[in-house]
Amino acid sequence: MLINNKSYRTIWFDEKIHKVKIIDQTQLPFCFSIVTLNNLKDVINAINKMQVRGAPLIGATAAYGIYLAYRDLKDKSRIQKEANKIKNTRPTAINLFWAVDKMLSIIKESLPPSIIEKNLLDQANKICEKDIERCINIGEYGLRVIEQIHQEKGKVNILTHCNAGWLATIDWGTATAPIYFAKKKDLNIHVWVDETRPRNQGASLTSFELNNENIENTIIADNSAGILMQRGQIDLCIVGADRVIFSGDVVNKIGTFLKALAAKEFNIPFYVAIPTNTIDWKTKSFVNVKIEERNQDELRKVKGLNKNNQLITVDIYPKDSIAYNPAFDITPKKLVTKLITNKGIINPNQDEILALKNVRN
Amino acid sequence: MLINNKSYRTIWFDEKIHKVKIIDQTQLPFCFSIVTLNNLKDVINAINKMQVRGAPLIGATAAYGIYLAYRDLKDKSRIQKEANKIKNTRPTAINLFWAVDKMLSIIKESLPPSIIEKNLLDQANKICEKDIERCINIGEYGLRVIEQIHQEKGKVNILTHCNAGWLATIDWGTATAPIYFAKKKDLNIHVWVDETRPRNQGASLTSFELNNENIENTIIADNSAGILMQRGQIDLCIVGADRVIFSGDVVNKIGTFLKALAAKEFNIPFYVAIPTNTIDWKTKSFVNVKIEERNQDELRKVKGLNKNNQLITVDIYPKDSIAYNPAFDITPKKLVTKLITNKGIINPNQDEILALKNVRN
Repeated sequence: MLINNKSYRTIWFDEKIHKVKIIDQTQLPFCFSIVTLNNLKDVINAINKMQVRGAPLIGATAAYGIYLAYRDLKDKSRIQKEANKIKNTRPTAINLFWAVDKMLSIIKESLPPSIIEKNLLDQANKICEKDIERCINIGEYGLRVIEQIHQEKGKVNILTHCNAGWLATIDWGTATAPIYFAKKKDLNIHVWVDETRPRNQGASLTSFELNNENIENTIIADNSAGILMQRGQIDLCIVGADRVIFSGDVVNKIGTFLKALAAKEFNIPFYVAIPTNTIDWKTKSFVNVKIEERNQDELRKVKGLNKNNQLITVDIYPKDSIAYNPAFDITPKKLVTKLITNKGIINPNQDEILALKNVRN
Repeated sequence: MLINNKSYRTIWFDEKIHKVKIIDQTQLPFCFSIVTLNNLKDVINAINKMQVRGAPLIGATAAYGIYLAYRDLKDKSRIQKEANKIKNTRPTAINLFWAVDKMLSIIKESLPPSIIEKNLLDQANKICEKDIERCINIGEYGLRVIEQIHQEKGKVNILTHCNAGWLATIDWGTATAPIYFAKKKDLNIHVWVDETRPRNQGASLTSFELNNENIENTIIADNSAGILMQRGQIDLCIVGADRVIFSGDVVNKIGTFLKALAAKEFNIPFYVAIPTNTIDWKTKSFVNVKIEERNQDELRKVKGLNKNNQLITVDIYPKDSIAYNPAFDITPKKLVTKLITNKGIINPNQDEILALKNVRN
């Protein structure tokens, strides 16, 4: 999608220098900076520092990480250890484990290292292409949801939380793909963007990317959606997910659950847009999902531009105070209207989710 | 209550210099600064800039404003115009209108101006003393709620939103009064403090005042209460209110409603602590309450300490983005367990609220 009217992806392999490039998302929206990943260490660092984030993009970055690790080590047994290092970066995004395992599965020791290396790069590139394809499919299916409300109301006010935009994927996004497709069809849409404390990905990333695509949007405090719903100012919620358990329960950015509860109260449709590789086919209950707890400094230290346009960090809390920072929460399936997947729109229940395994696309 | 181990009120009349003094709450928690209010203009400025905030404190400040205006003008007819200026500062806090009308009602033109002036000062002082008394009563009633849960669980984790602490009143607070009383009784309590974007009053004021009273507390993003409730880490919610309509519906800081919805989902008791002068006896339905919409800069511009410990403001949003900033929301009575008032704990319904009118204390 566009940044300053130029088309980008969030990650790409630079054939000229044989290195991986990413947009450093910790610098957005203030500074557009491209970072080179030379090796596995850089990849782990980029995921840990959240230069890349969003479940699909974490997965793709991890895939390139395995390629870079093999390129340096050329030894399958040592790669396994490196793979665990990547898996330990972020515990919630199921795409991370999916991508790493997919990469490991194609290391056939009977082949010469140069071929393995090439196969790994092809596979990482393919993971990216496939991700884009999935997002496009999500966009096409999700467009129908927006179109239906548009037909009824003439304008659709959509709430989204955090960033499940193209910056969370390779291109198009999950929750935003239907929005971009609606824009292409000239539907009258407006997006309410939850600021999404503590890291403000809604404001910094979602609003930024919607601005760049010229889509009308308004940032609100995470506290505000309740009264907007009460007043009828939200017609539809679409969020992404870091993981959907095959039971139908949704693990997503902290605060998603509160919005889903409010949407239920007012019978506002609440959709979760995911590629099928965000589905956790193993975990039986959401109580078994480990919720990542991140550093309290993410709440305390806020980044912004000072009056001289310098990007700096300020400490906003009383010096003696402590903060607690769980990064995700669980939205039970009963609050989810439907899942918009790349294989179609389904109800969030075990039967329909398991049935996806047999759907090809 | 205490700041740096010294006892303060939020507002007082300095008999030596015949002026009103307040704590400048826009500087907390970074800097403890006392401001002098010389005249009505200063009072209006202090309320508009939110140097004082919180419904009871806004009421008391407005009362001193009428006194200062009369002291300068000595003319009842002109005072009416000045009174309207004060009433126009903040549309939601019902105590503001209550206090101004109470002050106006004692301007008896048959009396000499010097007596009227003295009566007005006495009345403003009395409004403060009475407010403290009300908060103490709320503390005593609310303590019973905490004690009951403590008896059952041995520890009480309390969630509060925004600042309905002593800084929102003259002393003790509304939502925090029961907490301070529980602390005095050595009950095992811990407070989850909602950061409360956009102005962060939870972090800046509530956590600050709890720290100063040595009460264990943890700041969380406004997004976090859902998962804490889901995990059983919140036993009780207590919030204040800017206005309670006599139907029982509660107008309070934006975000209160989302927490009340979540509390209902998990059957966690949700109490609203108010002095009876926070009750709106006139407005029939919450749809008729005008919700104050404040400047978007309250979201965009965040104040904190830079690395040199200087208090500065940073701009955290993409430059092209816009934000919307409704300051309050409505929590329907069905989500409120009980109201803790200075006249006792009651159900949030019209009959029990109207019956308070006949309760003396």
